[in-house]
Amino acid sequence: MRHELYSAVVCDALDALGFTRQSPRVELRALTGVHVLVGRCRTMLWADMAHVDPEPYALELAAVDACRPDDVMVAAAGGSMRSGIWGELLSTAARNGGCTGAIVDGAVRDTAKMAAMGFACFARGTSIYDSQNRQRVVDIDVAVEIDGVRFAPGDLVFADDDGVVVVPREIEAEAIARAWAKVHAENVTRDAIRAGMKAVAAYRKYGVL
Amino acid sequence: MRHELYSAVVCDALDALGFTRQSPRVELRALTGVHVLVGRCRTMLWADMAHVDPEPYALELAAVDACRPDDVMVAAAGGSMRSGIWGELLSTAARNGGCTGAIVDGAVRDTAKMAAMGFACFARGTSIYDSQNRQRVVDIDVAVEIDGVRFAPGDLVFADDDGVVVVPREIEAEAIARAWAKVHAENVTRDAIRAGMKAVAAYRKYGVL
Amino acid sequence: MRHELYSAVVCDALDALGFTRQSPRVELRALTGVHVLVGRCRTMLWADMAHVDPEPYALELAAVDACRPDDVMVAAAGGSMRSGIWGELLSTAARNGGCTGAIVDGAVRDTAKMAAMGFACFARGTSIYDSQNRQRVVDIDVAVEIDGVRFAPGDLVFADDDGVVVVPREIEAEAIARAWAKVHAENVTRDAIRAGMKAVAAYRKYGVL
Amino acid sequence: MRHELYSAVVCDALDALGFTRQSPRVELRALTGVHVLVGRCRTMLWADMAHVDPEPYALELAAVDACRPDDVMVAAAGGSMRSGIWGELLSTAARNGGCTGAIVDGAVRDTAKMAAMGFACFARGTSIYDSQNRQRVVDIDVAVEIDGVRFAPGDLVFADDDGVVVVPREIEAEAIARAWAKVHAENVTRDAIRAGMKAVAAYRKYGVL
Amino acid sequence: MRHELYSAVVCDALDALGFTRQSPRVELRALTGVHVLVGRCRTMLWADMAHVDPEPYALELAAVDACRPDDVMVAAAGGSMRSGIWGELLSTAARNGGCTGAIVDGAVRDTAKMAAMGFACFARGTSIYDSQNRQRVVDIDVAVEIDGVRFAPGDLVFADDDGVVVVPREIEAEAIARAWAKVHAENVTRDAIRAGMKAVAAYRKYGVL
Amino acid sequence: MRHELYSAVVCDALDALGFTRQSPRVELRALTGVHVLVGRCRTMLWADMAHVDPEPYALELAAVDACRPDDVMVAAAGGSMRSGIWGELLSTAARNGGCTGAIVDGAVRDTAKMAAMGFACFARGTSIYDSQNRQRVVDIDVAVEIDGVRFAPGDLVFADDDGVVVVPREIEAEAIARAWAKVHAENVTRDAIRAGMKAVAAYRKYGVL
Repeated sequence: MRHELYSAVVCDALDALGFTRQSPRVELRALTGVHVLVGRCRTMLWADMAHVDPEPYALELAAVDACRPDDVMVAAAGGSMRSGIWGELLSTAARNGGCTGAIVDGAVRDTAKMAAMGFACFARGTSIYDSQNRQRVVDIDVAVEIDGVRFAPGDLVFADDDGVVVVPREIEAEAIARAWAKVHAENVTRDAIRAGMKAVAAYRKYGVL
Repeated sequence: MRHELYSAVVCDALDALGFTRQSPRVELRALTGVHVLVGRCRTMLWADMAHVDPEPYALELAAVDACRPDDVMVAAAGGSMRSGIWGELLSTAARNGGCTGAIVDGAVRDTAKMAAMGFACFARGTSIYDSQNRQRVVDIDVAVEIDGVRFAPGDLVFADDDGVVVVPREIEAEAIARAWAKVHAENVTRDAIRAGMKAVAAYRKYGVL
Repeated sequence: MRHELYSAVVCDALDALGFTRQSPRVELRALTGVHVLVGRCRTMLWADMAHVDPEPYALELAAVDACRPDDVMVAAAGGSMRSGIWGELLSTAARNGGCTGAIVDGAVRDTAKMAAMGFACFARGTSIYDSQNRQRVVDIDVAVEIDGVRFAPGDLVFADDDGVVVVPREIEAEAIARAWAKVHAENVTRDAIRAGMKAVAAYRKYGVL
Repeated sequence: MRHELYSAVVCDALDALGFTRQSPRVELRALTGVHVLVGRCRTMLWADMAHVDPEPYALELAAVDACRPDDVMVAAAGGSMRSGIWGELLSTAARNGGCTGAIVDGAVRDTAKMAAMGFACFARGTSIYDSQNRQRVVDIDVAVEIDGVRFAPGDLVFADDDGVVVVPREIEAEAIARAWAKVHAENVTRDAIRAGMKAVAAYRKYGVL
Repeated sequence: MRHELYSAVVCDALDALGFTRQSPRVELRALTGVHVLVGRCRTMLWADMAHVDPEPYALELAAVDACRPDDVMVAAAGGSMRSGIWGELLSTAARNGGCTGAIVDGAVRDTAKMAAMGFACFARGTSIYDSQNRQRVVDIDVAVEIDGVRFAPGDLVFADDDGVVVVPREIEAEAIARAWAKVHAENVTRDAIRAGMKAVAAYRKYGVL
Repeated sequence: MRHELYSAVVCDALDALGFTRQSPRVELRALTGVHVLVGRCRTMLWADMAHVDPEPYALELAAVDACRPDDVMVAAAGGSMRSGIWGELLSTAARNGGCTGAIVDGAVRDTAKMAAMGFACFARGTSIYDSQNRQRVVDIDVAVEIDGVRFAPGDLVFADDDGVVVVPREIEAEAIARAWAKVHAENVTRDAIRAGMKAVAAYRKYGVL
């Protein structure tokens, strides 16, 4: 079901409910050839560092091992490009538990291998540096922010080439219902315009753009 | 004819005529799988806003309904990424009139659908936010600027993966003629180098790089 | 041989040897459809200019004509996007001598033609402006920096979609040996995780991530 | 009264009430030697332009002529540095009506003359370009945003060297009351620390930092 | 005489003559406590480097030794912050010849000592790094650009806290004459507004803002 | 003694010893009217956060209470402007222990009050937001980096209007000795130039610039 919705129409539904800031205004690109990702947020909060980490990888390993079906790993690193904080091995482990993809507000590496796995990964970009002693996870399973937008554990998230949008739990049912209605209304409008109706007339008639 | 020219050689021709600032130095990426766009500018000037728009979409609907064959819609939004100001429905309406593509100094959405339509769209990037109450068109059919480069209604514009270049009306004929000549000269030079001539020798002989 | 290594594992090997800053943290994208490049650095240092160049293209022509098998042309332009400093003709000439690709810390043009040639080109982006009277080469065959990382003539360089990494001559043999070992260890770890081992257990057992 | 409050403590009071995004995270510097500004928002929304303005300066002249005592002119230009949109003459006219200063999310000019007038002006920076045919006011007396923070007409606003904070009308009384209480609590804490109490102990005792 | 003019009014005069891009839109701050600088351009073009300079400081020493009365040293470094390219010793030498100040599109150092000398220095910012082996002058006495604005040797330049503006030689006399007229008209308008005239009325009457 | 040295000459001494990256290339401005700061690094590593902090302020309070004479607090926050992480109360507590100032790679608040205290504070800028639930200290007394430059606990650090430079322990004695020698050589050169010697001649004679 969810895969017939798409990020923009979900965002419009949230707008209509007064939730007007549910998509980060930073570029989170699909880097692995998979262009649609839907699921529920599992979160990691990352911090930069420059000293020797006494417990390298500790919390990210725990996080990937805890993944459950339908999880989308949300790695909040404040946009830091200091190292590649997500890659092939974490993807493999996360997928074992059912994780469907990752959204990384930072850099990743092993993009070619993740592409070969068919693992969805939306990120700011890439870095070939290992994260060890450069960045580490300081909290998991807490609410995080990307560009001021809150991603809480369990929130429904949609990502595609237009962007990323997160649906707060308390309005999820209503938002999804409205999104479906908007999909239908857009289809009607588009079909009318495609059939030659002027855009001004179509908007006046259907009230949707 | 125009499709055998390409942006870089047109830009070189403009250089030779003393018009050395005809390409914006901002990244306007081909987001819909169509990598070449040529036509004449039809312009929209966008402004950010944060209050309730009393007439949502008014001028952009008028603009798309007015499109004529060979038009390229140039949406000047000063690089604002506040919302997706161009998308599937506007593309559909614009194409009804003959519009061949859009150049957007801002964000667009519905990229997958525009790609399915085969509609050329060069833009700064994407945003899933609806433009309503976020941005609006404040003028149409006026000269606009992208990164300090002037795009006047009716000017010939070329866009491809190397960039975007606009040809002022008053020198269009001469610029196109020179561009054709440059294409020929580059072919000769390239063929000579490909055949093994040293680059220094080729440049000395043909004077083209 | 080299093509079985990849940038990230080489970077990890350099980390292990205490060379922790061998990859520029700037985005150098594969712009021509070739996603892997390995070879030895041949360098050009570029500078912006705005006056009439008395000797246009002089040093870059000399540089491409001097290319030898296995060369990777490294064009250090400080990230300037002022013009397209590398393109089809230089690629053709460089390839005549055996050059396998270019890494450009600046803008290039003719990307479609270089793609047709199968010439690898990693760069910051594109510009359709000719370099003449906009940028020029001021030195060749000297050590250059990209984002503070030193590229000396003859250094081994790897580039792929994860990034670019350069191996200083004095530790090349040891770095390559370690990279091979790391490839093997990663394979073992990945296979174990793929077979269902928890990531925490795999890291405890194999010590590699 | 208001001048004994300051932006940071007002922001803390708003935090305590759940209004955690009331200060733009852009640098709005005091450019005229006046470092504190308090008043109620009067708003102008600016847009970039590049064609000949048929009615230059029309709305900004209307806006300054409409100023009333205690007004702070808030010029929302989306951070555009295209021209100096506020200067000596507008300041003079605005002050005639009682305007106490300006907050400009864009560029200003005549800083030396505004300093000589003692007119408070917080802005992104300066530009010597006249705004005519470069930027114009497209709306006045509407809610505007600076960096995603809403400034509605009549809202109380504080600006000083720490930043700018705006108090939504509906919680103004409560926010101001809390800010006063926080001022007192901070004074007690600071005096205790100044007298030699450890910070850990002071925070444990007074609960304020 | 020149010191009674100021950058903004000169820029307005240039606007009126159709020279609408004579001020760089980059922040060139007065870093040494001297806030007004007027004179004729003497130019240096700088380039970044990372190898050992065989002739350190060669061209900049020649340039400062060549300074003549009324010169303003314009150091075009493309905004590079790689090192402090101007400082106390160069200022001292330049002043020996009559140089009145420097405009540096890059970083400087020794700001406290230049302030003690009363030497005007407008720059992007500071760097404590010596320029040796980091940047060098590659040309002197050529036309240079700062943010796309051309500064030719001998051009009249004005700098103050509002910005920097350069007057092309061929229109210098006319621009200065118009600037004087504009100063007068602004004074009349300001005095009228200060005396209580509404801004709308003043602009209608005097046509100046 | 140390106050007669200054950042630039220390940096030159480090250059001569082969330590060429000891100054961050980010703007760390003196925000409190104190323009020189010298001491030994005491470090805090900060991370952004968006959830409720179970132990607000815990580590920063511990850090300020631990301050000793000659300490300079180095707050490494990766340039985050999310909140004001240093202010009047922390300054007061830190000064109790002998701390002479703070270098903050992030935002601070209470600048006016720190200025009244005469407490040196170099920072990226200001934010009026409280750090609680926005940023927290995740480590103290570890090596940190600002813009890739390492600041280890106990390292000698100099800050002034030209920039910030840190001296690694292992070469401190030699660096300081060389800096003194450089001060002397610069004085001789400057006096010679001031007395009218050409810069070219002075550099040839004294070898210092």
